[in-house]
Amino acid sequence: MSQTEPLTRIASVMATIRQRIEAGSLPVGSKLPSVRAFAGAIQSSVSTVVEAYNLLVAEGMIVSRPGSGFFVAPQVIPLKLSSAGPKADRAIDPLWISRQSLEADDKVLKPGCGWLPASWMPEQSVRKALRTVSKAGVDSLSSYSSLLGLPALRHLVSRRLSEKGVEASPDQIILTDSGTQAIDLLCRYLLKPGDTVLVDDPCYFNFQALLRAHRINMVGVRYTPTGPDIDAFARIVVETGPRLYITNSGVHNPTGAILAPAIAHRVLKIADQHDLVIIEDDIFADFEHTSAPRLAGFDGLDRVAQIGSFSKTLSASVRCGFIAARPEWIEGLIDLKIATMFGGARLNEEVVYAALSDGGYRRHTDALRVKLERARRDVGDRLRALSIVQWTEPRAGMFLWCELPEGAESADLTRKALASGIVLAPGNAFSVAQNAASFMRFNVAQTDSRTIEKLSQLLRLR
Amino acid sequence: MSQTEPLTRIASVMATIRQRIEAGSLPVGSKLPSVRAFAGAIQSSVSTVVEAYNLLVAEGMIVSRPGSGFFVAPQVIPLKLSSAGPKADRAIDPLWISRQSLEADDKVLKPGCGWLPASWMPEQSVRKALRTVSKAGVDSLSSYSSLLGLPALRHLVSRRLSEKGVEASPDQIILTDSGTQAIDLLCRYLLKPGDTVLVDDPCYFNFQALLRAHRINMVGVRYTPTGPDIDAFARIVVETGPRLYITNSGVHNPTGAILAPAIAHRVLKIADQHDLVIIEDDIFADFEHTSAPRLAGFDGLDRVAQIGSFSKTLSASVRCGFIAARPEWIEGLIDLKIATMFGGARLNEEVVYAALSDGGYRRHTDALRVKLERARRDVGDRLRALSIVQWTEPRAGMFLWCELPEGAESADLTRKALASGIVLAPGNAFSVAQNAASFMRFNVAQTDSRTIEKLSQLLRLR
Repeated sequence: MSQTEPLTRIASVMATIRQRIEAGSLPVGSKLPSVRAFAGAIQSSVSTVVEAYNLLVAEGMIVSRPGSGFFVAPQVIPLKLSSAGPKADRAIDPLWISRQSLEADDKVLKPGCGWLPASWMPEQSVRKALRTVSKAGVDSLSSYSSLLGLPALRHLVSRRLSEKGVEASPDQIILTDSGTQAIDLLCRYLLKPGDTVLVDDPCYFNFQALLRAHRINMVGVRYTPTGPDIDAFARIVVETGPRLYITNSGVHNPTGAILAPAIAHRVLKIADQHDLVIIEDDIFADFEHTSAPRLAGFDGLDRVAQIGSFSKTLSASVRCGFIAARPEWIEGLIDLKIATMFGGARLNEEVVYAALSDGGYRRHTDALRVKLERARRDVGDRLRALSIVQWTEPRAGMFLWCELPEGAESADLTRKALASGIVLAPGNAFSVAQNAASFMRFNVAQTDSRTIEKLSQLLRLR
Repeated sequence: MSQTEPLTRIASVMATIRQRIEAGSLPVGSKLPSVRAFAGAIQSSVSTVVEAYNLLVAEGMIVSRPGSGFFVAPQVIPLKLSSAGPKADRAIDPLWISRQSLEADDKVLKPGCGWLPASWMPEQSVRKALRTVSKAGVDSLSSYSSLLGLPALRHLVSRRLSEKGVEASPDQIILTDSGTQAIDLLCRYLLKPGDTVLVDDPCYFNFQALLRAHRINMVGVRYTPTGPDIDAFARIVVETGPRLYITNSGVHNPTGAILAPAIAHRVLKIADQHDLVIIEDDIFADFEHTSAPRLAGFDGLDRVAQIGSFSKTLSASVRCGFIAARPEWIEGLIDLKIATMFGGARLNEEVVYAALSDGGYRRHTDALRVKLERARRDVGDRLRALSIVQWTEPRAGMFLWCELPEGAESADLTRKALASGIVLAPGNAFSVAQNAASFMRFNVAQTDSRTIEKLSQLLRLR
């Protein structure tokens, strides 16, 4: 036996306890298992557990009360999202891409970023909406919104959802500060620390960051070009007993895949059998020419809640999102909305309503879809010339999920690219299982000739 | 022994288990203690615990696996804030006043509400700011804000804090979607489910709702006209080992009390000794003629974080708040901000900046303070004529915390008033210990002659 083995075992025992404290299953003030009981439970030696407990006392994480045992200490242990996961490699951290993209100045190229350049957004619709609202009644300018949010906007959202096959009355729609905040509110309502949640692998990286903030165990299900691998989905549901499945089925992020009706049907059947609820994130709805199947549409908002926002096609500056959910959930969601954000953001709701009820927005999205289709084709061709190959051919949206040439590693390429002023989106940022190291997500609206040229240089330098 | 006693004991055992499941100390899938062990631990009979377990199985909250025991069931148990507390009496629920106030139409009188009437707000400053922003650059209209939020607004907040004796560089300031959301973000960063938090008794009712959403144990400390009862504070800190104390020391809600420097000093000394962190909610800052002491100022943002917003004196429609905190907390807070709300609400930040950097806002708040002073005196006099007596004489703000005439009960009066179209704020909504049944908070800007007349009628009808 080498010298380092006992140390590794002690560290592993410490990590187990730390994790239980962070997940809340050992709350502050609670008594730890006795050294002997814990050693038995984890099949370790008593001396290893003694040493681990003593080190945790030294760290201030637990306290020893002679004669009565060890207790979780009351000191502040801030929730650290970027080191809470299994790996702390900064290039594949789920928050890395968001931070780099949000902080980048105009000189930085951002093919990894998750939104359109400002020049692709309907700026004039927003200007016009601001002028309209500047002349509105005093309540529009000075008062909180109502509990559910501006009635006119909820009616408009209800009509738009109906066009996508999702029937939700305005009373089933709650406006929120953003799409992310809509998911956050649902997680607060539906989940408890320590619950298990299914995500797609790959999935939008911020689902992972958000679920970590809720102290949730994540399990990934392999995604295919027609939806989740349904046999794996069925097996994993039985094995891990998740409460919730979170996905975006309209235009899947990062793959651009489209959910097949038969898969949607089977997902809902499994969900029914195992009392699984589903959050369907549909923020890319306005990128579609024709609507792909929606879980929320098939299910009739029974066990599926749908969320949406206007950040991707109207404005990321005017934050506003919504939840469409079954009537029985609405009162509880309103209570949580008041407790955690108080009144609704009326100004944003008024501006979004003014912009969306104007013909200009629909003309803009019609033109945008054509422009994105051309960009997907052009960028796809140019990436292929660098042996960067599309995993599937998306019918809508701004993302291409691509496999790098043999031997290229996406986190490594990402670090090198950042040194040259390019923000990339490496595959493993999207993968709970960390099995997408050879993949990369490209935003076709942010991938210009300079980006392709730099990528080409970096790939040649390998 | 009466017939009902065993039933009461069974219900009490069920409540204990339900509470542990909701608080996360019994996570989903975890095994419950054996019937015998649990009966011993809570000094109950085995048959009572057997019955309680069986009823919980029938409710679907736990499952029985023959041969291995009872386990917490994986079904969805939505977090219900309005029944999670010790009492479900709708008139004293911490969310009741918020819901009634936010949902009330123009015909309802709202002396219990926590904000000024729209007609008292600087509507023209907001209109002008909207016109200014409608002509701003494309990024102001279309892009997310930066990680910390609009630099110009953070510089302005930094200067305003400095005027109140709180030194915070713009890099120590994070903009949020609202003051409530600023507190929520800090709670996420600093707390874990099951932690204990100190609040003032009485305190702003939404602190209680927010802390329930975080599955926190609350302990109240009696508030006096010069701050918390410092001997009780010291004793309760030792007895309950809280992580955090949350208060608003500028203009205390609901009492209007002003923190005395000597009390502030002792609070900070106790906090130092027991590694307690403090959130100081300072959203009423602009109501003050001269600044009262701030914990954040005395402490230099070491263990105190201060939050603020512009909802009370600029606009409740333009949601924007901020956190000022020690530099070491900023990166972790940014991670949580991205995970739970993604990009910042740039439009709101731009509108607040435009409004605040215009001279009109300062003139408005100067005039508002005079107007509120007069209203406090007038309404105070008229309430006194009904034998409704002020607990202290506030030097700033819109609230009077008053004791009702002998024999009047505030929850009862509140229910009757609602039937007459008046929303009141009964004392126990502010009290963790539920010992403010004879108190009521009045908003002087919302208490007009009709309100006084109706109150007079209701009190005579007793």
